[in-house]
Amino acid sequence: MANVSKKVSWSSRDEDSAQGEDTPLLNGAGAARYTRQFSGSGIFHIGKLSTVDLEEDNSEEEGAVLSRPKEIPHNEKLLSLKYESLDYDNSENQLFLEEERRMSYMGFRCLEISRWVVSVVSEIGGLQVSDQALWLKWVIAGLQVSGVMLKWVHRRASVSLSMCSDIEKFTEVGGLSISLILWAVLNSAFVMVGSIVVAFFEPIAAGSGIPQIKCYLNGVKIPRVVRLKTLMVKVGGVICSVAGGLAVGKEGPMIHSGAVVAAGVSQGRSTSLKKDFKMFEYFRRDTEKRDFVSAGAAAGVSAAFGAPVGGVLFSLEEGASFWNQMLTWRIFFASMMSTFTLNFFLSIYNEKPGDLSNPGLINFGRFDSDSVEYNLYEIPLFICMGAIGGLLGALFNVLNYWLTIFRIRYIHRPCLQVMEAMLVAAVTAAVSFTMIYFSNDCQPLGPDQSEEYPLQLFCDDGEYNSMATAFFNTPERSVRSLFHNAPGSYNPLTLGMFTLSYFFLACWTYGLTVSAGVFIPSLLIGAAWGRLFGILLAAITSSGSIWADPGKYALIGAAAQLGGIVRMTLSLTVIIVEATGNVTYGLPIMLVLITAKIVGDYFVEGLYDIHIKLQSVPFLHWEAPATSHSLTAREVMSSPVTCFSRIEKVGTIVDILSNTSTNHNGFPVVPRDSDDNEPGRICGLILRSQLIVLLKHKVFVERARSCLQQRRLQLKDFRDAYPRFPPIQSIHVSQDERECMMDLTQFMNPTPYTVPQETSLPRVFKLFRALGLRHLVVIDHENRVVGLVTRKDLARYHLGKHGLEELQLAQT
Amino acid sequence: MANVSKKVSWSSRDEDSAQGEDTPLLNGAGAARYTRQFSGSGIFHIGKLSTVDLEEDNSEEEGAVLSRPKEIPHNEKLLSLKYESLDYDNSENQLFLEEERRMSYMGFRCLEISRWVVSVVSEIGGLQVSDQALWLKWVIAGLQVSGVMLKWVHRRASVSLSMCSDIEKFTEVGGLSISLILWAVLNSAFVMVGSIVVAFFEPIAAGSGIPQIKCYLNGVKIPRVVRLKTLMVKVGGVICSVAGGLAVGKEGPMIHSGAVVAAGVSQGRSTSLKKDFKMFEYFRRDTEKRDFVSAGAAAGVSAAFGAPVGGVLFSLEEGASFWNQMLTWRIFFASMMSTFTLNFFLSIYNEKPGDLSNPGLINFGRFDSDSVEYNLYEIPLFICMGAIGGLLGALFNVLNYWLTIFRIRYIHRPCLQVMEAMLVAAVTAAVSFTMIYFSNDCQPLGPDQSEEYPLQLFCDDGEYNSMATAFFNTPERSVRSLFHNAPGSYNPLTLGMFTLSYFFLACWTYGLTVSAGVFIPSLLIGAAWGRLFGILLAAITSSGSIWADPGKYALIGAAAQLGGIVRMTLSLTVIIVEATGNVTYGLPIMLVLITAKIVGDYFVEGLYDIHIKLQSVPFLHWEAPATSHSLTAREVMSSPVTCFSRIEKVGTIVDILSNTSTNHNGFPVVPRDSDDNEPGRICGLILRSQLIVLLKHKVFVERARSCLQQRRLQLKDFRDAYPRFPPIQSIHVSQDERECMMDLTQFMNPTPYTVPQETSLPRVFKLFRALGLRHLVVIDHENRVVGLVTRKDLARYHLGKHGLEELQLAQT
Repeated sequence: MANVSKKVSWSSRDEDSAQGEDTPLLNGAGAARYTRQFSGSGIFHIGKLSTVDLEEDNSEEEGAVLSRPKEIPHNEKLLSLKYESLDYDNSENQLFLEEERRMSYMGFRCLEISRWVVSVVSEIGGLQVSDQALWLKWVIAGLQVSGVMLKWVHRRASVSLSMCSDIEKFTEVGGLSISLILWAVLNSAFVMVGSIVVAFFEPIAAGSGIPQIKCYLNGVKIPRVVRLKTLMVKVGGVICSVAGGLAVGKEGPMIHSGAVVAAGVSQGRSTSLKKDFKMFEYFRRDTEKRDFVSAGAAAGVSAAFGAPVGGVLFSLEEGASFWNQMLTWRIFFASMMSTFTLNFFLSIYNEKPGDLSNPGLINFGRFDSDSVEYNLYEIPLFICMGAIGGLLGALFNVLNYWLTIFRIRYIHRPCLQVMEAMLVAAVTAAVSFTMIYFSNDCQPLGPDQSEEYPLQLFCDDGEYNSMATAFFNTPERSVRSLFHNAPGSYNPLTLGMFTLSYFFLACWTYGLTVSAGVFIPSLLIGAAWGRLFGILLAAITSSGSIWADPGKYALIGAAAQLGGIVRMTLSLTVIIVEATGNVTYGLPIMLVLITAKIVGDYFVEGLYDIHIKLQSVPFLHWEAPATSHSLTAREVMSSPVTCFSRIEKVGTIVDILSNTSTNHNGFPVVPRDSDDNEPGRICGLILRSQLIVLLKHKVFVERARSCLQQRRLQLKDFRDAYPRFPPIQSIHVSQDERECMMDLTQFMNPTPYTVPQETSLPRVFKLFRALGLRHLVVIDHENRVVGLVTRKDLARYHLGKHGLEELQLAQT
Repeated sequence: MANVSKKVSWSSRDEDSAQGEDTPLLNGAGAARYTRQFSGSGIFHIGKLSTVDLEEDNSEEEGAVLSRPKEIPHNEKLLSLKYESLDYDNSENQLFLEEERRMSYMGFRCLEISRWVVSVVSEIGGLQVSDQALWLKWVIAGLQVSGVMLKWVHRRASVSLSMCSDIEKFTEVGGLSISLILWAVLNSAFVMVGSIVVAFFEPIAAGSGIPQIKCYLNGVKIPRVVRLKTLMVKVGGVICSVAGGLAVGKEGPMIHSGAVVAAGVSQGRSTSLKKDFKMFEYFRRDTEKRDFVSAGAAAGVSAAFGAPVGGVLFSLEEGASFWNQMLTWRIFFASMMSTFTLNFFLSIYNEKPGDLSNPGLINFGRFDSDSVEYNLYEIPLFICMGAIGGLLGALFNVLNYWLTIFRIRYIHRPCLQVMEAMLVAAVTAAVSFTMIYFSNDCQPLGPDQSEEYPLQLFCDDGEYNSMATAFFNTPERSVRSLFHNAPGSYNPLTLGMFTLSYFFLACWTYGLTVSAGVFIPSLLIGAAWGRLFGILLAAITSSGSIWADPGKYALIGAAAQLGGIVRMTLSLTVIIVEATGNVTYGLPIMLVLITAKIVGDYFVEGLYDIHIKLQSVPFLHWEAPATSHSLTAREVMSSPVTCFSRIEKVGTIVDILSNTSTNHNGFPVVPRDSDDNEPGRICGLILRSQLIVLLKHKVFVERARSCLQQRRLQLKDFRDAYPRFPPIQSIHVSQDERECMMDLTQFMNPTPYTVPQETSLPRVFKLFRALGLRHLVVIDHENRVVGLVTRKDLARYHLGKHGLEELQLAQT
């Protein structure tokens, strides 16, 4: 078993090979446009090089667009090669070990303390986010109010007209039309601004940002996802899209924003602003940055929902693979501080300074202890609602999937995207208007009226239009109304119509080129049909006080719908419990979420996973596909491998790095003496980024006069270049220098993880996932390099309808 | 760097070496007795062998006890070699791979479904636990009531006597003495029974069980920790110790019980009862069993506190290393079902069948929404209370540490242990009695009296003695009273005295040879001083309604004290939030717990960690010690290594396995052709347990007539023997058979994880911890075996006051 013969053909290490993870855009079909939106112009991490590539490709691309692409490469059976991995495994080279060994115990203490400090500063990040969130709240509230005012004016005008006489009906309709048009134009204008900012300046800022953060935490480098510019565009975009009356929430963007802030603060500098504070230089590597990003995401959730524990669980459920207690505590601390500062500001906003009992930006309102009882015989009902949520969620996801495919095919130009967004805004306005116009659900204004803006539209005095309330308020407030308004506040027909229209609007809206989340729309849809369910139930049974409270069913429905769409369980349970401020419903919510997940998973994946798949990201799931034991490392690895000698000629290095057709990122290092016909024994692994820094600093040795090593390279030099290493093209190497040698010994990682060729895929997968690897060297029984396993080699296998399937690899 | 010369001396593989993890008891000093209590007679996993060893050692041991041991080996600077590791890394040998490859996708679906089914059955386990818990509640309530009744009778007698005349004071005192003695005797009797059961039948059932479960999940095999007998003794013991009036809780034991039930159910058989249901055979290995144990522990927490999310977090915070989403969901589901069934039974117990709104066995009472407000300026107070909790917790831990050392030295015989337990019971009774006698804190019986047993002892009619209330009720009820009784129910002096006495009683009690937890006593101490704090605060400021509610401070104090003792943060926050049914206090509780942890950690470790350390368990923490980068695999590994050839002589195998001085558990396998003077190239790894099964089934080949392979061995044969593999001594191998050969190829794990010699300790540690390894083979650059890293090699380094320290290894 172990004396495996060298079945794998071996070629010289200078040959072209297929080992690299990241290859620049080569065949940019129409598909490239969609991935642009996700990955920011398809630029891969070495900024300039890719721009060059893109420009080179442009002509070809244009051609491809003009002649309609014959095969549509974007379906979920593709895996893009253009996404790079992050290095979550430290490169423990000599420099690193020397630094670590120099550090005393106190040094480590200081480091740990500064980690906590950064977490607190990220809390100030959280503060900024929550500040921003608060500001958002104000701005949006202001805008909404002005919109509402506009409509009030129109309403008064039209209603007073309709009072006059029947002859003037025509005028009324005319007035209404004007009102509708005004409203649609206003909304479209807002959305246009938001969409233009996103589509033209930073396509990565589109959508909720949660899939991107999920990929980042999984170890895939989504270009520009944690940049300052992205943050700016995201914040601006989300204000516009919420103000534009789209069926969107601002929670996903807030989570993304939190992650960006944390990533930025932890680096102690801003590359965009060209400002380096010379702080936290130790944290300038992927491993540390990931930890801060997860803390930031948690703080974002925490600020959005007032759910610090939920935030931690969100980070863990969506991202982490290795559970580290210290890290978890730090994340927890960051979340807590985020909630804390938010509470503080909220208490000022609510004019009760210092009263911190009212956490969270989105408050779903407190369920009083008396009204929250539920009974055993309600459990089957809850499960039934969970199943409905799962079905509706699956429907939502399927529709959105087809819509996204359609968008990929036909709506790939920024201007088209902006137009679509504007169209959606106009249609949203028209639908709302129509619904309100034809609705005659007038409810009396009670003394304990919780609505802040009861709209009288088309109703008698002392009454308000409940359909208008559902549509015109911010979605958050509508959710709260659905949870807490007294029984009888809503007409079943109103709720049914609202659910139906909002469902399709939200489905159409998600995936537009605007910054927008799907959390709140989902909750709103669910709350609406949940309340409807409760009302119908009460009507059928016509008994008991327990059945009579539709707010309870609205909550359960909201949970079911959201669970059916995003398929989170543990974190979502805690988030909803924390947001409603009551743990009594914990158990039913859990049941509902698990049911929704099981039912939904039977049909289709969760919304975020669908989008990740459609973007062909090499995402690694928690475990290898079930039936993959038949595969071994030998089958999945890329081979032959481009290796370097321990002391390598500069010319060779430059040539290999410049080879755009392979574009490898990690190179096993073998001793010098191995001849070319036989693989060498592995003695290290070196990364492209490290070689680039070496070349830039011209760390050359002997063999030629001009090859004086200029100075001893420090770890600092690598950190300064992180994370935007210059492209190889920007480094000038003279003909003389090409003849020099470079000693890689102290820069390579001398102890890369290796596996023998017979290792089964699940075992390789486990190693890869648990340690966050980027390259795994496959060796034969004499420790010679025979292959290299990268992320795409593992992500390529997935479980289809007919057993194990292999995804095609695409260059885009 | 990479062409490391073979500095490590190499000897032939038959030589004695120090690679094994588990060595039987060789030098059993007094220390052995303490570890008996923890590990169940120090028997290591191969049942009979160890018994034999123990008997062999007995004489020596007796001698060692008679002549007082010169050096006390039990301090925290020791690491015991007698604990075995668990195999959390699957041995992917040919048999296993064949089975996996035969399995279709549907097979895996079925397996996953049966995992969920087992989780549900573990829920029935949870049900059993909660049932047991409920039963416990009834029994204990009954016992307490009878005790209270006894005291009532005496009180009436004595009070009526004291009414008569001064002359009869003497008689009164006499009557009181009799009452006291009766009470003390009754309590001692209960405790004696509980203690005898534990000390003589199953010492592992002593204590809360949480440290043991923590070790199990960490990967250390604590003998007999998940057996049926342990469960029985634990349940019986905890009833006796709670009924005996000790300052203990029943929550830790419930968590342990949950884990045992889940482990038992998942195996589909009971070895003790000799009953095999032929179910779930796939789950008969350590990896799967661990998952069920963590689910069981979570279900236990869930049942005990009504905190399903808290249970999941407890399992994760205390145990898991690799976060797996599917596993987490399953754990979550199990917890949920556990709470659900418990609620159902509780609703029947409370005579409101079907009303599930009242979760948890321990209900700390619901904090109403109105009274739960807190303000910004209370935050510093909360932090201050957290610091007090941390200090008091550290004091508790230090006192308990010295007490435990004392117990290890002097109280190691079971009969002494029983006597100590009885003494503690008597002293507890005496102290309570004295406190009540000298207390004159009589409170009027209000109309909204929440006490179920208001005790009038020494008070006027219409009043009750609040000190007696605090002492005589079950601790759970006392905690609830402290949280919720109206302001003024307790005298500050009462609270102060109660805190003081209960603190020392609880500290003395923890570590006795009885089944008992520390959760509730900690909460009680904290609630008492917290309430005191609140009362004092109100007295000082004499203003505002916010300050006036001492219940809030009781809650914060309880959290602070518990956090200071056990040092959990995330899970404890969620547990307390779920148990109190209100999330508003989430933020202050978190703050308090983190403060308590930081302050406490400055002085001493958490209570569970102290006990784990004192038991010299090779426990692996989350990360390698900070300054350990200077060590490499070469320094930490054991070498030389006993290797086997791929086709090995039976006699050699039997001899090596029988060598009790080494007692290795894992053996690298090298190709046959390597000669003895040079290490062979690694081609596999085989475990002792596998070899034992091979020998038992006489899977021999050729070389001699008698060596007919009897039948092809199945994976089932290994599973049937799991987990109690017979000792090598019980397997008879004839002289003829000794000459036969054994082909290990299809039984060994052909792809063990390996690292080069230069790998730094943190890197080795990360690999070990993330993958749950038991053996890690160290190779040179030609893939030859040069050493083996086991758990004890890594656990041996820890961070002391003067930097990195190395623990001594002890055979006991």
